[in-house]
Order: sequence, then C-alpha cells, then structure tokens
Amino acid sequence: MAFTVTILGNSSAKPTPSAHPSAQVVNLNEQYYLVDAGEGVQQQLIRRGINPLRLRAVFVSHLHGDHCYGLFPLISTLGLLGRRTPLDIYAPAPMGELLEHHLRYFDSDLPYEVKWHEVRTTEHQIIMENNTLEVWSIPLRHRVPTAGFHFREKEPGLNVDKWKIERYGLGIAQIVAAKRGEDVTLEDGTILPNAELTYRPYKARSYAYLSDTAYSPRAAERVKGADLIYHEATYALSEEMWARGRGHSTTAEAAKAAVKAEAGRLIIGHFSSRYKNHEALVEECRTIFPNTYLATEGEKFVIEEKR
Amino acid sequence: MAFTVTILGNSSAKPTPSAHPSAQVVNLNEQYYLVDAGEGVQQQLIRRGINPLRLRAVFVSHLHGDHCYGLFPLISTLGLLGRRTPLDIYAPAPMGELLEHHLRYFDSDLPYEVKWHEVRTTEHQIIMENNTLEVWSIPLRHRVPTAGFHFREKEPGLNVDKWKIERYGLGIAQIVAAKRGEDVTLEDGTILPNAELTYRPYKARSYAYLSDTAYSPRAAERVKGADLIYHEATYALSEEMWARGRGHSTTAEAAKAAVKAEAGRLIIGHFSSRYKNHEALVEECRTIFPNTYLATEGEKFVIEEKR
Repeated sequence: MAFTVTILGNSSAKPTPSAHPSAQVVNLNEQYYLVDAGEGVQQQLIRRGINPLRLRAVFVSHLHGDHCYGLFPLISTLGLLGRRTPLDIYAPAPMGELLEHHLRYFDSDLPYEVKWHEVRTTEHQIIMENNTLEVWSIPLRHRVPTAGFHFREKEPGLNVDKWKIERYGLGIAQIVAAKRGEDVTLEDGTILPNAELTYRPYKARSYAYLSDTAYSPRAAERVKGADLIYHEATYALSEEMWARGRGHSTTAEAAKAAVKAEAGRLIIGHFSSRYKNHEALVEECRTIFPNTYLATEGEKFVIEEKR
Repeated sequence: MAFTVTILGNSSAKPTPSAHPSAQVVNLNEQYYLVDAGEGVQQQLIRRGINPLRLRAVFVSHLHGDHCYGLFPLISTLGLLGRRTPLDIYAPAPMGELLEHHLRYFDSDLPYEVKWHEVRTTEHQIIMENNTLEVWSIPLRHRVPTAGFHFREKEPGLNVDKWKIERYGLGIAQIVAAKRGEDVTLEDGTILPNAELTYRPYKARSYAYLSDTAYSPRAAERVKGADLIYHEATYALSEEMWARGRGHSTTAEAAKAAVKAEAGRLIIGHFSSRYKNHEALVEECRTIFPNTYLATEGEKFVIEEKR
C-alpha cells in the first residue's frame, strides 16, 4: 500500500521567483490529502501530475496566507471541473467564516459541498478517521492558533499463519477466533497462544507535518515513532532570536524535535527567503539528526512498507 | 517617456501547468499600474523583475477569481515588504467588502492604506487622473459587471518654437501667452497665429484593456485610436456559440473590435485551455486585423512615442 508525501511548495511567506509556499500531498493507499494550500497550489498539483479532483480532503495548519491563499482558487476550479463529491476541509476557526465568505462572493453555485471541520489547535485528538487512516491534530506553538497533522496508518488486522492452519487442522471458528486475537484451544485440550498462530501483515506507518511552529518538545513526543516528519526550519542555527520572535524554528530545533520523536527521517522546509543555500541548512540539521533531507519542491518521499 | 505593457498572465480560468491567469503591468513614465490580478501575480511580478512596491494602483476589471485571486496575497506581501504609500484599487463593487474582509482576517495591521475606488461598470468616465495620465472605465459585456480600462496619456502642453522666439524677439509674457494657446501680437501690430509659433512635443498615446467581454462595438468606439488594444479572444472563430453563452469573444470578434477602434496594434489573450496552438488563433485575427499579436506571458509591448 503506497504511502507517499509529495512536496508542492516549501517556501515561507515572502514570494521568490521560483519557490512556492507551503503545500504537500499525502497519498495513503490512493487516498489523496492536501496539507496546507499556499498560493498557486492548484497549478502545482497539475504540474506534478496530481488530478485535483482526486483530493478527498484538505488540512490547513493555520490561517496565515502562505498556508491557505491557494485553497479558494482551488475550490473554484474543482467546481469548474465538475466535482460532485464533498470536499472536507480540516482547519482552525475561523476558516468556516472564510469559506462562507468565499462561497458567497465567488462560488455561490458549486456543484459539490464544501464541509468545514474545525480543528481545535490546543487538542491532541483524532480529527479524521476511516478504515485505513487516522489523522491526529498536534498542537503547535506559533503566532496564531496552529495545529500540525499526524497521519497514522491503521494497524492492520491479524492474519493467521496458513502453515499453522494446516499443521493443527484449524476450523473456521478457530481461525475467526485467532483473527480476533484470542488463543485457540485444540480438541485435545492444548491451548495455542495467539502469538504463535498470527502475525500482522505489515507495521503501521505514520507521517507528521509540523509547521509552522517554534520548538515544541510536546509536539515531538506526540508524534513519537513517526517514519517521516516534516518540520519547518525557517531559520538557520545562528538565528535563534529571529525564530523565537516569530514563532518559528531553527534547523537545530527541527533536528532536536526529530531526535525527541525518534523519527525515521526528517525533511525540512519553509525556509526564510534570505537563504539561497538550502543544503547548508540540511547540514546543520544533520549534525544533530543525520537522517535529514530537503523537502525539495516536486520531490515525492516514499514511506516504505514495514514488515 | 516610456509607455509599456508587460504581460504577466494570459490564460483563462482553468489552470494549466505553465500559463498564468490574467494580469498585466502598464508602465507610463515610470508609473506602474497592475491591471487584473489572477492567482500568482505576485510571483509573476518578481519573475519579470518588477518590484511590487513600485505599483501605484491596481485596476480590476471584474470579480471573477481568475482576475482577482492574486490581489489578496499581493496586499499581504506589500505589507511584509514594508510599503508605506497607499495602494489605490479601482474595481467594481463589491470589491470594497472583499477588501474589508481580507484586511480583517489576514492583514489587520498593514503599514499602509488600501483604498478602494468603486468602478461603475456601466459608465464611460475618468476613474483616475494625474499630470501624465487619465484612466477611463469602458463598460464591457460579460456575465458579471465588468469594465475595461483605457489608459490615455495626457496631451502634452504646447512648446514654443525657439527659432520663432529668436526671429520675432518674443518676450516672456508673449511666450507664456503662446504656451497658453493664444495668438501673439507683436509691437508693430502683426498678429502671429498660435499654430505658427507652437507645437506639441509628442502626440498622446493610449492603451486599452478589454477583458472579459463579448463583442461590444460601443466599447470599441470608446477606445477609438488606441495605439495598442488588448482584447480577450477566449474562443476560436468556430466557437461563436460558446463565446455568446459565456460572455466572451472569438478571435474574429476581437479583431472586429480592433478594426472598429482603428487600433494601432491588437494583442489577444485569455485563451480557453482547450487550445494548445495559440499562433493559429492569432492567424484567425490577422485575416481581419493584420496587426495582431499574441499577448505572450513575459512579453513587454512598447508603445513608441509619436511625434
């Protein structure tokens, strides 16, 4: 089952000639989710070969323009393209008012429903759930109410080892019981522990999006074990005062968060426009968390299956 | 005095991988004006080397998203860049409400003033004026209230021919009178007609922006003699029914408008995304109005001085 993260934009608020503001697409098992929607995201989707009609939902971390200006043109375009299925938008208040206003002035006749789900940015909780996936809000520390998002693949059900089925001649009822997690009793009274009969076909994976935020050890704790973490690193190590003043993180702080979260890999972005050499920023992270990479625009990060 | 039009975007509402929606910059004598502001215009400005802080005013033809979604991010960025001078925005109602809403939710603390000037889209009148320039609203025919804009360089004042000053020994008072357009009486009673003494250093030039619109002979009449006209040509000649249904023009209709306006040159844009070959659209225009060109993104059209 594919689990990928495609970077559509990684710049911060000040526009540059070539970079685009924050936006990513998470794909889990062909379910496409947009995470943040900086200006121009609709064109970025098309450029990266992602059909905007496939988006199931949009998650917006906070209501700064560089994270959501692109949502409103996208809503219009989905209407133009004839979308029929509802679009769920998970975002902090007052996104509901922004959407209402937008629909009133620009899209009073959409062929599909736009549904806002309020994200309470001080709560660590499930905000979206289906058979495959849970999405949790992760309270962050920024200048306005902000939540990160933790995309957690659901743990798969137990499979019964077919060799054991043969070896012990297990019947349907016993197989069903084992799949439920129970021990199985054979005819002769032997009790087979569940762990001997069953296995999970894969280990659940997860991806955490942590932006925008000052360093938050609690947020890092809450995404512990994430296979991949995106963490903003707006400033270089030397600019800690800037980061503190603006509710952002330095490279070192992003790396510290990844260490604390015992992450698999860290990808960084949302760089201030003052930096031309992003590789240098990655190097600063690597002295603390070696498995750090650039969230390069256009790149697709694959979270491999774990068995 | 420079008079140029730089095309920042020429696509219509449906996004494409490479084109950008409607936006242009008119530069007259180092006064920069933005005409329409499709999504992404701020990045387009930077790409084309135009400092957004230099913009004096923005003109918005109508409140369809592909003509104004880019205005709101631009307002924020001008704030980030520390703009102090007011930004005048000429646009139809209810732009005032859109701006108010935007400022409340995104830019409650701008370091500069945003001033909306209502454009009455049924009126042909001066909407902006200074020493160098008059901008007129041109009522257009579209699905929502829409006005085009006619940028008219002001006629220069009269200059007195210095050879005549010498030849007739004209004094200050006589020179001043001649500049005012009066005939001059010499000491011996001879009356020198003004036309013999004076000339205008250059002929006033003008640029007309006509988009979005169905064919409007009246609009064409109103911009008569324009040196350069931008006219939307959303559809090819064969798609007249589409154009009529959507309040747009075909190539032939854009060309007809240029003929009626006795324009110097015609540039066309706002093509439907169905067309890949824009040169073919230009050819269709040229059979009616030979001096037609593509309003190619990135191109700067120069309106040469006329003497």
